[in-house]
Amino acid sequence: MSVVRSRLEKEMDKFALALTSSLEHDSNIFYYDILVDLAHVLTLLKAGHISKEEATKILNAVLEVRGEGMPEDGEDVHEAVEAKVIEKAGDAGMKMHTARSRNDEVATCLRLFARDSLIHLAYSLLELREVLIKRAEENFDVVMPGFTHLQYAQPTRLAHHLIAFHDMIERDFQRCIDAFGRVNLCPLGSAAFASTSFPLDREYTARLLGFNGVIENSEDAVSSRDFLIESIFVATSAMLTLSRIAEEVILWASEFNFVELPDEYASSSSIMPQKKNPDVAEIVRARTGKLLGNLTAATAIYKAMPLAYNRDFQEMNPLLYESMKSVELGCEVMAGMLEKVKFKIEVMEEKAGKGFSVATHIAEELVRMGVPFRKAHRIVGKLSLNLGYENLRRIMEDEGIEPMTEDDFRRCMDVKEVVESRKNTGGTAGSEVRRMVESRISSLQKDVEELREIAEKISSSIEVLYGEVSRVLNRNLFSSGV
Amino acid sequence: MSVVRSRLEKEMDKFALALTSSLEHDSNIFYYDILVDLAHVLTLLKAGHISKEEATKILNAVLEVRGEGMPEDGEDVHEAVEAKVIEKAGDAGMKMHTARSRNDEVATCLRLFARDSLIHLAYSLLELREVLIKRAEENFDVVMPGFTHLQYAQPTRLAHHLIAFHDMIERDFQRCIDAFGRVNLCPLGSAAFASTSFPLDREYTARLLGFNGVIENSEDAVSSRDFLIESIFVATSAMLTLSRIAEEVILWASEFNFVELPDEYASSSSIMPQKKNPDVAEIVRARTGKLLGNLTAATAIYKAMPLAYNRDFQEMNPLLYESMKSVELGCEVMAGMLEKVKFKIEVMEEKAGKGFSVATHIAEELVRMGVPFRKAHRIVGKLSLNLGYENLRRIMEDEGIEPMTEDDFRRCMDVKEVVESRKNTGGTAGSEVRRMVESRISSLQKDVEELREIAEKISSSIEVLYGEVSRVLNRNLFSSGV
Amino acid sequence: MSVVRSRLEKEMDKFALALTSSLEHDSNIFYYDILVDLAHVLTLLKAGHISKEEATKILNAVLEVRGEGMPEDGEDVHEAVEAKVIEKAGDAGMKMHTARSRNDEVATCLRLFARDSLIHLAYSLLELREVLIKRAEENFDVVMPGFTHLQYAQPTRLAHHLIAFHDMIERDFQRCIDAFGRVNLCPLGSAAFASTSFPLDREYTARLLGFNGVIENSEDAVSSRDFLIESIFVATSAMLTLSRIAEEVILWASEFNFVELPDEYASSSSIMPQKKNPDVAEIVRARTGKLLGNLTAATAIYKAMPLAYNRDFQEMNPLLYESMKSVELGCEVMAGMLEKVKFKIEVMEEKAGKGFSVATHIAEELVRMGVPFRKAHRIVGKLSLNLGYENLRRIMEDEGIEPMTEDDFRRCMDVKEVVESRKNTGGTAGSEVRRMVESRISSLQKDVEELREIAEKISSSIEVLYGEVSRVLNRNLFSSGV
Amino acid sequence: MSVVRSRLEKEMDKFALALTSSLEHDSNIFYYDILVDLAHVLTLLKAGHISKEEATKILNAVLEVRGEGMPEDGEDVHEAVEAKVIEKAGDAGMKMHTARSRNDEVATCLRLFARDSLIHLAYSLLELREVLIKRAEENFDVVMPGFTHLQYAQPTRLAHHLIAFHDMIERDFQRCIDAFGRVNLCPLGSAAFASTSFPLDREYTARLLGFNGVIENSEDAVSSRDFLIESIFVATSAMLTLSRIAEEVILWASEFNFVELPDEYASSSSIMPQKKNPDVAEIVRARTGKLLGNLTAATAIYKAMPLAYNRDFQEMNPLLYESMKSVELGCEVMAGMLEKVKFKIEVMEEKAGKGFSVATHIAEELVRMGVPFRKAHRIVGKLSLNLGYENLRRIMEDEGIEPMTEDDFRRCMDVKEVVESRKNTGGTAGSEVRRMVESRISSLQKDVEELREIAEKISSSIEVLYGEVSRVLNRNLFSSGV
Repeated sequence: MSVVRSRLEKEMDKFALALTSSLEHDSNIFYYDILVDLAHVLTLLKAGHISKEEATKILNAVLEVRGEGMPEDGEDVHEAVEAKVIEKAGDAGMKMHTARSRNDEVATCLRLFARDSLIHLAYSLLELREVLIKRAEENFDVVMPGFTHLQYAQPTRLAHHLIAFHDMIERDFQRCIDAFGRVNLCPLGSAAFASTSFPLDREYTARLLGFNGVIENSEDAVSSRDFLIESIFVATSAMLTLSRIAEEVILWASEFNFVELPDEYASSSSIMPQKKNPDVAEIVRARTGKLLGNLTAATAIYKAMPLAYNRDFQEMNPLLYESMKSVELGCEVMAGMLEKVKFKIEVMEEKAGKGFSVATHIAEELVRMGVPFRKAHRIVGKLSLNLGYENLRRIMEDEGIEPMTEDDFRRCMDVKEVVESRKNTGGTAGSEVRRMVESRISSLQKDVEELREIAEKISSSIEVLYGEVSRVLNRNLFSSGV
Repeated sequence: MSVVRSRLEKEMDKFALALTSSLEHDSNIFYYDILVDLAHVLTLLKAGHISKEEATKILNAVLEVRGEGMPEDGEDVHEAVEAKVIEKAGDAGMKMHTARSRNDEVATCLRLFARDSLIHLAYSLLELREVLIKRAEENFDVVMPGFTHLQYAQPTRLAHHLIAFHDMIERDFQRCIDAFGRVNLCPLGSAAFASTSFPLDREYTARLLGFNGVIENSEDAVSSRDFLIESIFVATSAMLTLSRIAEEVILWASEFNFVELPDEYASSSSIMPQKKNPDVAEIVRARTGKLLGNLTAATAIYKAMPLAYNRDFQEMNPLLYESMKSVELGCEVMAGMLEKVKFKIEVMEEKAGKGFSVATHIAEELVRMGVPFRKAHRIVGKLSLNLGYENLRRIMEDEGIEPMTEDDFRRCMDVKEVVESRKNTGGTAGSEVRRMVESRISSLQKDVEELREIAEKISSSIEVLYGEVSRVLNRNLFSSGV
Repeated sequence: MSVVRSRLEKEMDKFALALTSSLEHDSNIFYYDILVDLAHVLTLLKAGHISKEEATKILNAVLEVRGEGMPEDGEDVHEAVEAKVIEKAGDAGMKMHTARSRNDEVATCLRLFARDSLIHLAYSLLELREVLIKRAEENFDVVMPGFTHLQYAQPTRLAHHLIAFHDMIERDFQRCIDAFGRVNLCPLGSAAFASTSFPLDREYTARLLGFNGVIENSEDAVSSRDFLIESIFVATSAMLTLSRIAEEVILWASEFNFVELPDEYASSSSIMPQKKNPDVAEIVRARTGKLLGNLTAATAIYKAMPLAYNRDFQEMNPLLYESMKSVELGCEVMAGMLEKVKFKIEVMEEKAGKGFSVATHIAEELVRMGVPFRKAHRIVGKLSLNLGYENLRRIMEDEGIEPMTEDDFRRCMDVKEVVESRKNTGGTAGSEVRRMVESRISSLQKDVEELREIAEKISSSIEVLYGEVSRVLNRNLFSSGV
Repeated sequence: MSVVRSRLEKEMDKFALALTSSLEHDSNIFYYDILVDLAHVLTLLKAGHISKEEATKILNAVLEVRGEGMPEDGEDVHEAVEAKVIEKAGDAGMKMHTARSRNDEVATCLRLFARDSLIHLAYSLLELREVLIKRAEENFDVVMPGFTHLQYAQPTRLAHHLIAFHDMIERDFQRCIDAFGRVNLCPLGSAAFASTSFPLDREYTARLLGFNGVIENSEDAVSSRDFLIESIFVATSAMLTLSRIAEEVILWASEFNFVELPDEYASSSSIMPQKKNPDVAEIVRARTGKLLGNLTAATAIYKAMPLAYNRDFQEMNPLLYESMKSVELGCEVMAGMLEKVKFKIEVMEEKAGKGFSVATHIAEELVRMGVPFRKAHRIVGKLSLNLGYENLRRIMEDEGIEPMTEDDFRRCMDVKEVVESRKNTGGTAGSEVRRMVESRISSLQKDVEELREIAEKISSSIEVLYGEVSRVLNRNLFSSGV
């Protein structure tokens, strides 16, 4: 019988166990559970709740369990690991859970998972930004049609379009970092929710695990899952950005014909041998639906949960695992696909003027000639029904306005010139796009460094943790390849 | 390289494959894929597109693959099974996919899964209804408090309360059956979406697989997933009903103290040894959030999908698998828990009059004495601030009304009498509750028979299918235990 | 102070009132609340709980309130109407709420709203089916490209494609009818949840309001909202179908260039004068997201609600109102747009062979020549990289197969012939599509009649209700134009 | 006909207009649209695109429109206001839309709305924190039962519990501030998405409207709605916290009996005169479901939207309006309710030891006596089945352990002492809770000041804007009370 079943006299019903066991998903936090065990044992030792000899036995047992990998039976990973430790370390093992509950243990594991996932996601987002900047530079002079309502709207610059994507992703990166700040706090030491009568140096535990500090109030620490929901939200937000890029890949590889997909990111058909399908982009798009469903599920589960812990929380965990893994994979795949996709420059440039996309520019030219904009808009609206200089001349004369010259009209029809004419901050002119590209290169560099610092601080904490374990065990875990 | 990769010259990128492969979840339809292969081969044979010899080779290969179990590599189960069949049956194997696409194949597998799951769910719902009726009968005379806004409202009858649950579940059963009618139609023969130039007897295929008929238009057949969404909705609806029962189990096992949980459906705590927690009910409640998230995900993925097939559909499949399995398990577990839960009758009866729950009855008595209801309501409102006959007498006199006698007042305070007084259709009086219980027993019996008929029709179709295979192979698959 | 505030000594806080008042949305059920009042008063009269004179006073007051329209103050429509009736009818008015609670009252109003909305939706779906059939008939011979993954897949027939949409909508129609059966049941007479000690003929009330019967168990009757959730689901399901049509309208009006939008269903731009945007289709697509959000909200609110009534239910009502109105409007608009949209037949036919869409047919032809399908698929895969008869000949020779003749190849390239070759049930051949169109015409006719019968049964019930009121009041409400 | 309908020759179909018009919801941004018009006109003037005389005419017209209030007809507020301005200012009015599109206009209005709403929400969250701290101080010494799984778990301190709520809300406050940083950037000057050929000082416009800067890339500026989704997420996250407090209010006012609701935050029943229902808390709980549905809808609408603008975005706006208004109202109401709710201290203290809630402490005491924790847990588990010192003594003797003294046992049973014994960071001991309260008082003060600074910076920008308008118009708008 489970080591924690205590006063209950019967085993759990087997269907009930199948429904309630978290073991299937706990492999996601097995490694974190080991870290938590190590840090907790060191903390117990520091406070004198266990002897050095006991600590040695327990730590050795925990490391053995780590070597054996995720246990296959039990209520959950925490109970299963503890049972194995007791098996290996006897009475000393029965002391490991002193001053601790599964409530603070799982909250700590989840925060470790969320923290590392956010860092991975942040790295993937940086990679994607790098690819977008690179492709913008490579295709700096390419003019392409811009769309609103999926209708030809105005000519624009491919590099400008790619920077728009970059900037969306940059905000997703910032959200990662903001969420990280709320996630990377340590609940351990809160016990079931009401703290414990055993003195513990919670700040020490937090440091060993690479946390920025403790999540203070012990009831808040075990019964809050806002950090988990925010992490899923950040993943969903990034995935929504990916879904927009994916949609354009699908459209552009279709009748729009702006790109040729790399074979490595395409599929064929089991029946139609000519097909080259954008399955990868489609899955990214669909997975976005999955993630927003996960966010929905997490919030629906969390709504109106009374304090402190409820088993409902357990059902939120797989939502976190899956969301973080999906979005990271999604970023990787989009970065790879965007790096290799072939832009069909000639098609883009040929279609840049399609759908009378310079109409707005003609209206603006009329404004420069003194026609109020709303009237200019109406004039060009009429022109659009029957395009041509002669027609424009006639319409303007009918309105009693001195017509535009044919030369000016021709200049308005030159999409490259039109794209160059928009020199405002954020506009499509070459000079402005060049400035934007360069500023993105610096901000990327800055973000890379910020993230590296964060990651390094965590790595060195974990090194300290293993160093402490080595010291207690009197053997070098690093050299032994653990 | 995958047998269907055709014109593509490079393997898929490994991250892209990790993102797009459905193999992890395809085990849910492996058995159905085998059935589909068998039925398709028989149909090809019947139409003369393959020879009997070829059919024999393919069928044997398919049966071998079935014996070997779910393949471990490949894009998906369909491609993987076909690759294995080609390996085993050579050129004949290369004919299996004649007149077929993965599009109609997967649609057929999904409908088979959904159909069988709906039947399983329907059975579980019948089981739950049976338990509820049984517990209502066993506790027929138990009076308990009824709540609105979680406040004591009016005394009621436990059996009446349990019938309310029963009736909700009965409607969920009906939804299963309605959905089944739209699900159990065969897409096979639709190929990629545009049908095929090979003549096929689609009705024959449909019969072999136990479908009620074909889903006719070939484009609709492969590109519609409304059946999948409706199945998840039916699961969610049933789970919502379960969540309401689960919530009451949680409350009743808490401060309300109306039940003692069976040990088999309770957990303890890793730190607090006295705990007996309603984890099972909590997981049912939380899983409801998961299912509504699945429904959200499925609809969000499906929204605005152009015809015909898009790879996005693949991401809907695990949502179906998980939802149907969860709800079935949820029903089983709730049925088990409700069967064994101990109702604390004395507590229920003691609290039945709590919170001045007979107030409404006193107001109704005043109405019978001629006081307009809205005035009676106000009088009893005042009485509730200071309960007692003397107070009622004084308030009535102040209002210029002939006071109720103390005897009548005392009768109003008798919760059993109050519960008995509500004899309308659907009311709480013993006679009416008895009638309702009996009518539920008959409707349950009727539904059991209807469902049995449906299930038997399908079983005998599958028997016919294996019979045909036996005939072609000239060996008895039944006696060989296949 | 509110007539129902009873024992509470202070008015509600004004922010709390702003948060909790349902009055903003209650206008949706004001008319139904009047009907419910009339039927309830007739039922009280029939049972002798009020005198004919009292009934007359109350009924007159209710009719007056109806004439004055939706009240502007109060907690909710029920309380507000009752307050006005009391104002007008004095002591008699104070008897209207005898044997009734707002709990059964609002449940009845909601079911009346849902029932009528489902009927309206069903009518709109029939209209849409009619338009689709009509456009299919008008464009019977038009060949067009079919897509999977938004890539050219195989040539098909516009009429066949439109029938696919029809069949999806037909299933949505069936869902309406199924839901209607569970919705159209009367909760009135259930009071707060525990029935009432006043004898009431619930079946009589139900008949007067056009219900098919009562929803029996009084606790189930007031505390279940599955009917509301199912109605929103049916609306969402239909809207999802609309979103798929809308998406194709958007794509087809874009680079695909298959349709010209009617001006009445297009917008322009405030800045770009040449634009003709598919805003209407975009809003249909977006509104689908709104509806699935409503479904999410309704299920998230409902999850784990203990019995019987909770105020949470109130927040579900606007979700119902909005969803039903949106989907009905969405259907109307799509029917109008599809009726008037201009199919660009020449473009469709020209593009029908694009993207080597006959590849599958060539592979099928090779199969007919004896090549196993999987090999034929590979051969045509190679051909697709370099199209042309000579290339095919060379590839076949390399594979050691007798090449296809140039004549046969040319026949395979004829998209009309290809489309005609698929004669299976549900296929694209003219004869089969003709058969499908005709069968849809009959099923539409049948459904029109079924729905008309349902609607007429309800109308005549409401006539009976007003007839009874007339009889009591001794004046003809019909001639007075009420 | 609409001033922007341009080339379209027919009015929009009336159902289509009903479906697509945003006018119903645009009243939420009418005031912001006026601000945007004023700032844009000043920017045009500064760049010399309009003369001072023209600017005067337009500004006067815009101020008049503001005075007249939200227009009743039109496609949307932007088109309607422009039409009125043209009516009032003639040809000058026709110049207002120069260098602008509704795309950048609406994006700016939405960001203004979101920004101000986030500030309002932040203020409300501060208010709530203040109330929680105050109630914690007032009830500093109150001991109460703590729950997990809604079962009696361990005794705790009311003040500690209230701080847990405070800390959750503090994180929601931080999310507001983080989101504010991404929201408060100005899109104006981006035109349709591709910028404009008219030079504009975008930084000037941004300053006038109180933005922190521009949102740079013009395509990103008009086609991104991540800021809107993040705002809804922040609202949902805060509402989820409220829902947890609301749930406890509902439970505590029920059988747990820990609080007496203030009459101003309670309702009664139309039929049951004794009722005092927690409707306000229930609506807060339910509204949380509404908000998470809004978040779902917004993400589902946004998913896979191609660049740049799509009309779909319009459907996201009401989701923002409603979510922000609901959460702000929810905070206000919860703050009011928590301020006035009466804690039933004697009930809390009496129940603090219920359910053998000191069991963990006894186990901890055993650990201090040398028993390994897992064994101590099992011993107390047995004890819980039959409570009492004698039993403990017997169990310990059976386990071969020196029994605890009766004095020690009695001390373990003293809940106050137990609560005091947990002195770790974040624990329940008086000293630690005192420290936490004080640290919250300072952090609240700091946050109040930060928020005040933000709000003041915006106010003074708007003052500058009106100052500039005054200067152009040569009249003092401030003294005239505009």
